[in-house]
Amino acid sequence: MKGAQALVGSLVGAGVDVCFMNPGTSEMHVVRALDDVPAMRGVLTLFEGVATGAADAYARLTGRPAAVLLHLGPGLGNGLANLHNARRAGSPLLCVVGAHATDHVRHDAPLESDITAVARTVSGWVHTSGTARDVADDAMRAVAATAADGGRIATLVLPADVSWSEGGDTAPPRTTATPEPPSPLRVDRAAEAVRAPGAVLLLGGPALSARAMDAAGRIAAATGTRLLVETFPRCWDTGAGRPAAEKLGYAAERALDQLTGASSLVLAGARSPVAFFGYPDRPGDLVPQGCPVVGLADAASDAEAALTELADRVAGGVAAEPAPHHAPEPGPGPLDVRSLCAAVAATLPQDAIVIDESVTASAVLAPALRTAAPHTQLALTGGAIGQGPPAAVGAAIAAPDRPVVAVQAEGSALYTLQALWTQAREQLDVTTVIVHNASYAILRVELGRTGAGEVARSGRAARMLDLTDPVPDFTALATGFGVPARRVTTTEDLLDALRWAQAEPGPHLIEAMVPPPA
Amino acid sequence: MKGAQALVGSLVGAGVDVCFMNPGTSEMHVVRALDDVPAMRGVLTLFEGVATGAADAYARLTGRPAAVLLHLGPGLGNGLANLHNARRAGSPLLCVVGAHATDHVRHDAPLESDITAVARTVSGWVHTSGTARDVADDAMRAVAATAADGGRIATLVLPADVSWSEGGDTAPPRTTATPEPPSPLRVDRAAEAVRAPGAVLLLGGPALSARAMDAAGRIAAATGTRLLVETFPRCWDTGAGRPAAEKLGYAAERALDQLTGASSLVLAGARSPVAFFGYPDRPGDLVPQGCPVVGLADAASDAEAALTELADRVAGGVAAEPAPHHAPEPGPGPLDVRSLCAAVAATLPQDAIVIDESVTASAVLAPALRTAAPHTQLALTGGAIGQGPPAAVGAAIAAPDRPVVAVQAEGSALYTLQALWTQAREQLDVTTVIVHNASYAILRVELGRTGAGEVARSGRAARMLDLTDPVPDFTALATGFGVPARRVTTTEDLLDALRWAQAEPGPHLIEAMVPPPA
Repeated sequence: MKGAQALVGSLVGAGVDVCFMNPGTSEMHVVRALDDVPAMRGVLTLFEGVATGAADAYARLTGRPAAVLLHLGPGLGNGLANLHNARRAGSPLLCVVGAHATDHVRHDAPLESDITAVARTVSGWVHTSGTARDVADDAMRAVAATAADGGRIATLVLPADVSWSEGGDTAPPRTTATPEPPSPLRVDRAAEAVRAPGAVLLLGGPALSARAMDAAGRIAAATGTRLLVETFPRCWDTGAGRPAAEKLGYAAERALDQLTGASSLVLAGARSPVAFFGYPDRPGDLVPQGCPVVGLADAASDAEAALTELADRVAGGVAAEPAPHHAPEPGPGPLDVRSLCAAVAATLPQDAIVIDESVTASAVLAPALRTAAPHTQLALTGGAIGQGPPAAVGAAIAAPDRPVVAVQAEGSALYTLQALWTQAREQLDVTTVIVHNASYAILRVELGRTGAGEVARSGRAARMLDLTDPVPDFTALATGFGVPARRVTTTEDLLDALRWAQAEPGPHLIEAMVPPPA
Repeated sequence: MKGAQALVGSLVGAGVDVCFMNPGTSEMHVVRALDDVPAMRGVLTLFEGVATGAADAYARLTGRPAAVLLHLGPGLGNGLANLHNARRAGSPLLCVVGAHATDHVRHDAPLESDITAVARTVSGWVHTSGTARDVADDAMRAVAATAADGGRIATLVLPADVSWSEGGDTAPPRTTATPEPPSPLRVDRAAEAVRAPGAVLLLGGPALSARAMDAAGRIAAATGTRLLVETFPRCWDTGAGRPAAEKLGYAAERALDQLTGASSLVLAGARSPVAFFGYPDRPGDLVPQGCPVVGLADAASDAEAALTELADRVAGGVAAEPAPHHAPEPGPGPLDVRSLCAAVAATLPQDAIVIDESVTASAVLAPALRTAAPHTQLALTGGAIGQGPPAAVGAAIAAPDRPVVAVQAEGSALYTLQALWTQAREQLDVTTVIVHNASYAILRVELGRTGAGEVARSGRAARMLDLTDPVPDFTALATGFGVPARRVTTTEDLLDALRWAQAEPGPHLIEAMVPPPA
């Protein structure tokens, strides 16, 4: 058996049965193996950032790694930004990077580069496979490594000769690490903290599942503890019927307001909050002075179980208070960010997956979704934009029976818009709503916050922040990638387009024009 | 003066007056400085790979570095593939990567990652600026570093506080290294080699300029030495009126044929030829057994001067034999790769810049261009696809009075198609001809060459090699980015479209449909 066949066969045996890929010459034997191992689903993307972003979302929703197959160092480079997001999300992910044949490396051929140096910056585990005989077991070690620390990237560098040589054999899966069980001492301390008035419970990472949210809701109902959710949740079950929780604001000023007066800050699956960027004369650490931070469970431990133990301890039989279902349709008129978000919330299908890369619109979207139909939210964990369209691919493949609604800023969408093609090819049930204000609106905001001050209107600096001259036409772009699209400028047309998109199978894109920032 | 102002002011003083950019929050002060330093031209791109690919082409044509401005580790990752191509081209390039403020790093905020580890894989020089006082001189050291070894990438990591703090001052340019002068011993040995019958002179890197080609042509005319050009020339002055030279084939089989029987192989600016990929049971080193390799000048030395000395030595007053101008229009009928290449050659404007990322079509394009109007060719030096559309941006900005014709494979184009938007915004004179066969045709070829064998027609493996279901619509995509476009399926329509594109100012795209590979 060739190394590539042993690899693919063993992955399937270990439950890794989806591979997002951009193959090249060095990966031809792995591609060929798809004809031999029908249980492996190959999903072609037009750009590596689509493959890695899709695998991240897939992992967040299933808890299992998908594989990505990339072509040498440049392919890894193209996938790096969404691997960064996956690392920050704690997503288990198997990154297979094809490389030159072992005895070709010495020629320093044009595509040769230092793959492992780049891979190490995002991976918890990196290994270069040496022979066809070893590759299947190497892959099993890699899959096991993705489960460590609550979820990591494992990168297996796969020389072409290891793929093409005979002598391989499938290997059995290895036992994977299980998350650390709750620490009784930490539960004690957290119980003491939440029983005092004014406690804040910050939820993040794995502590955003329906079960974890229910436990958090019970704690809140019984003790009055305030619930906050990390700014960019990896995978959050929320909406009507689940306990209401505010997201911690992106702007440090807003987050500081939300945390002011906390008697203690209890962390479940979340890290202690810090500012997204440093700013002149503003704190980076967002914990109010004197506020004790109590770690209940970090992202590598079983935060769900820890929250449940804490709830059993402090809430007894008290039930969580479910958020009401209240998402009225906005009235007719020209679109703005507020009516756009209201329309998305009003039409949100039951049990949808919402991909939120709406950037400046996110602060408006969050409260609108709190009382929309129950759903799961995935956000931009690592700040590397261009995560949304790929994440929609991975989410739809991870959960084919759940509709995906992607609320997507236009500037970020343009990083990885090739994902639309894969949505079309795989006929994924994705509705993308482009929030189109023809600018990098976030940078207009940040210009002031970083103290860079005003820029001359239509001046040379301002031109670097605007997406005008020309304004990208997403309806044409989506059509080019095979996704039916409509442009809307009024609330009533947006509602109509959302119903159209959700009624028809397959992907759709709605280009929602909103006013540029003031 | 703020650090950012000192930086931008000093760069302009050192002749670095174009900056291709994708700025983010940490780079706001650099953007703001564009209003203060009008001599710096900021060029916005929608994706970092466009910025880095543009800077590579700019450097190849001008011999001077442009700057790119990227946003933290993920921005560098997005730009990495075209930095890889730039490294392989030996392009001087200044990469400025904005980073978190110095005292924000300890918070490990979401966008934090190991920037320098990634930068080192493509850069000859990497430094993180420490204070506003030092940043201008750091930048001057970086610019000087780009000139070493014949052209390198220098990466300056720029913490946000270094940009925003006062205390900066402009710094004078530093003296840059000049290329090593010709070695008399090497010229002697090369002279001996080319005087013997059957010598081959392989030209590459800096030895492809008009002056170098003329010297090579004199050597060929006087001694009968055969001229070959490296497979992926960085910047090659060729076409009618210049000495004819064949490119070394991409396929190792073809290259071996071209080199068979050589009495010696003299290298001018080129590296000793190796196979692009390793294949089972095929050699990686393409030099025929027993053929001596004579290094006249490497890419870091003054290869132009070395060739001129060699020509003076062996050719005396003999002139180079100019290639004739012979590029007849193809007859009417359905398009194929042959008629497509003939149409491009027939209509090629005088002194055009040809960006060749035509991949499988390149072997047909090369002979067609040999007798087309004199022009300069830029190719995919590092094999990281998605170089063409960005290179067209950089070429048009480097040489605004020269038309740019980009012959572009569809699969590669889809990696960095966002470049079209910058072409539209800057109204660059670029004609892109998409060679559209709706497949990764090169991989169909490589499947057999790597011994992976046949794949089932329309099977699961075959689906990873085809760009069908849906076929991307480049006319719609170009329109979406603001570039006028036409789809053509016949020779006569292609000729018509080429004339339309070249008559109107600004960018155009022609989607030329050719049959899929057999």
